Amino acid sequence: MHTGTTTSLREKLQHLIDNKTKPHGALGRLEELALQIGAIQGTTHPQLNRPHIVVFAGDHGIAATGLVNPYPQSVTAQMVLNFITGGAAINVFCRQNGLGLTVVDAGVNFDFDTSLFPGKLVSKKIGYGTRNYLEQEAMTPEEVEKALMAGADIVTELASNGCNCIGMGEMGISNTSSASLIMSYITGIPVEECVGRGTGTGDEQLEVKKETLREAFRRHLPAIAATPDALTILRHVGGFEIAMMTGAYLKAARLRMVIVVDGFITTAAMLLARLIDQNVQDCCIFSHTSGESGHARMLEYLGAKPLLNLELRLGEGTGTALAWPLLQSSVLFLREMASFESAGVSRAGEA
Amino acid sequence: MHTGTTTSLREKLQHLIDNKTKPHGALGRLEELALQIGAIQGTTHPQLNRPHIVVFAGDHGIAATGLVNPYPQSVTAQMVLNFITGGAAINVFCRQNGLGLTVVDAGVNFDFDTSLFPGKLVSKKIGYGTRNYLEQEAMTPEEVEKALMAGADIVTELASNGCNCIGMGEMGISNTSSASLIMSYITGIPVEECVGRGTGTGDEQLEVKKETLREAFRRHLPAIAATPDALTILRHVGGFEIAMMTGAYLKAARLRMVIVVDGFITTAAMLLARLIDQNVQDCCIFSHTSGESGHARMLEYLGAKPLLNLELRLGEGTGTALAWPLLQSSVLFLREMASFESAGVSRAGEA
Repeated sequence: MHTGTTTSLREKLQHLIDNKTKPHGALGRLEELALQIGAIQGTTHPQLNRPHIVVFAGDHGIAATGLVNPYPQSVTAQMVLNFITGGAAINVFCRQNGLGLTVVDAGVNFDFDTSLFPGKLVSKKIGYGTRNYLEQEAMTPEEVEKALMAGADIVTELASNGCNCIGMGEMGISNTSSASLIMSYITGIPVEECVGRGTGTGDEQLEVKKETLREAFRRHLPAIAATPDALTILRHVGGFEIAMMTGAYLKAARLRMVIVVDGFITTAAMLLARLIDQNVQDCCIFSHTSGESGHARMLEYLGAKPLLNLELRLGEGTGTALAWPLLQSSVLFLREMASFESAGVSRAGEA
Repeated sequence: MHTGTTTSLREKLQHLIDNKTKPHGALGRLEELALQIGAIQGTTHPQLNRPHIVVFAGDHGIAATGLVNPYPQSVTAQMVLNFITGGAAINVFCRQNGLGLTVVDAGVNFDFDTSLFPGKLVSKKIGYGTRNYLEQEAMTPEEVEKALMAGADIVTELASNGCNCIGMGEMGISNTSSASLIMSYITGIPVEECVGRGTGTGDEQLEVKKETLREAFRRHLPAIAATPDALTILRHVGGFEIAMMTGAYLKAARLRMVIVVDGFITTAAMLLARLIDQNVQDCCIFSHTSGESGHARMLEYLGAKPLLNLELRLGEGTGTALAWPLLQSSVLFLREMASFESAGVSRAGEA
C-alpha cells in the first residue's frame, strides 16, 4: 500500500504503532525501526524478504609492511576459505537467523580454485591486493570504477531474486587502517583518533600503526584536499572490498532496500557512499557499535543510534547478522500485534 | 561432558573460545555469555533446549484507588485474553524466535472461562487481586507460600518436558508500584528514586504516585525492618504474580536452568529470590535495560550487564524474547565455529 506523501505515510505508520495493545512508546527503539522500514519501503505494511549478507574480501598492499597489523596477509585468503566451508562466525549467525550469505573475492592475494566449491565464491577480483599507500596510490581510477560497478552488480542481482534487505560485511587484513584514513579525510577527526587496535594490536604496535597512518595521511592530503570526493579518497587509500561495498550501498539505496550497516570498515564505506549520494543514509539501519575505538565517533558523526552494543570487533557482517532478528521483530509487531480495538483492551484514562 | 571443578571448566571454555577463528575477544559480550551458559550447565558443550517464557498475571488492590496507574485494573484481564488469542507483543516475539509461551493466572480480578480456550491458560489463581497495601498487608502468609510453590511447580513441569532455559514475564496493572517498594526495601534506595512512569503516567500523576508510595513505604517499614526477608516484603507490598515469579526463579536456579531476566518487575522478583538464595544470580542472564527509570539502578545494584538497551518498557517478557537470539548465538558460535587448527588459519604474530 503506497501512499501519496512521506509525511502522511509517517503519520499513518505512527497511528498504527500507537494503536497496538501496549502503552504509548513502550516498544522503544523497535517503534522507530518500524517507522523507518515502513518509510524506506513506502508502505504501512513493510516486509523483509530474502535478507542477505554479502562479505567482500580484499587485500591491502600495506599489510606486507607489517606496520599496521598483527596477522599475516595470508589470513584474508584463509578466512575466505573458512567462509566457504561454513566455519566462520558469520556462517554460524547467518544459518541461525535465516540470512543468505554471499562471499565475494574483491581482490584477495590468492588464486582460489573455484572448481572445488562451485557457487560458493563470487569472483570479482580487481587485483591481488591494493598497492601500498605508503608509497603510491592504492588503486587506479579504473580499478575504483570497476569495484564500484561490481558492488552495484551484486546488489542488482540479489534484488532481482527478491531480496529487499541487505547487509555488507568484509574481510581484509589491514583494512581497519584504510578505514581510519577514510574516516579522517571525511570527518576531519585527526587520524590518530580514528585509529584503533583492529584485530588485536598491542600498545607498542598501536603507536607504530598511528605513526604509520599519520604519514600516509600527510602523503595523500594535498591530492585529496584538492579533489575531496569519494573516488579520490578510494583511489589514494581505499581497498577493493571497501570500494565494492561503496558501490553496493549506492545501488541498494537507489533500489530502496533496507540496508543494515555493520562495524568500522563497513561504516567507512557507507561514509563514502554518502559523500556521493546523501540519501543513502535514509535507507541505513545501524546494527551495532563496534569495540573498534573509532566506530563510536563515526556513528556520532552520522547521528546514528545503533541497535546493539556488544563490544564486537570481528567484522564479517557479524553485528548485522546478530541484530537482524530485531529488524524482523519491528516489522512483525507492526504486522501481527492486535490493536486496542481488535483486542477489546481499554486505553489509559478509560474507566 | 561434565568436568571436575568450576575453575577447570571455565579454563576449558575459555580455551575453546580463544581458539575459534577470530581475534582474541572479538565476539565481546557473546564470549562472556558462552562462558556463563557453559558454567551454568557444567559443560563445554552447552545447549539451549525448549526455551520457554512464562507470563504471570495478577491484580493489585491499590489499582482501584487510581493513585498509581493511568490504565484501569480491567486491562490486566483484557491483556490476558490478548495473550491467549496471540495478539500481544510477547506472542509475536515468541512465535518469531521459536520460544514456548505459557500464560498463568496468578490472581487476576476476573473469572476466565477456560473452556473457551483449553490448554491456553494455566490457572494458579491465589485470589481476585491482592489487598490494597495502603490500608493493610497485600497478602496473607499462606497466600505468599502458595504463590511461591505454584511458581516452582510450573518450572518443575517445564523442566520435566526438557526445557533448560526459561524467562519470566508479567502483566498486572499497578505492579510497577509494588516493584518500586520491593526495590526500595531491598536496595535501600529511597522509594521516590525507585518510582517511574510505569505504563505511561504523566508528570502530575507521577508526583501523586511517588507520594502514595512514600506513604505505603512508611506504613510497612516497621514490620519489614523487624523481619527483612523476602516473605515479609512479599506479604506486605508484593503481588501474586511477583511472588510466583520469585518461586519460579528459586526453582529454576536449583535446577541449573539458564534464566533470562526481563525488566523492572521481573527483576524485582529476582531481587526477592536472591534474598532467599544468593546463588540464583549465577544462573541469570540480564536481557535488557528497561526504559522504566528504576531498572537501571536495580541492575547497577546487582552489578548486571544487560544485553540490550532498546528503551522498552512493556513487560510481558518482551525484552527476554527479543534478546533470546543472542543467547542462542553465543552457544552456537561455541559449538559450530571452526578453530584455527581445523580451518588452517594463521594466528596473530605467525608469519
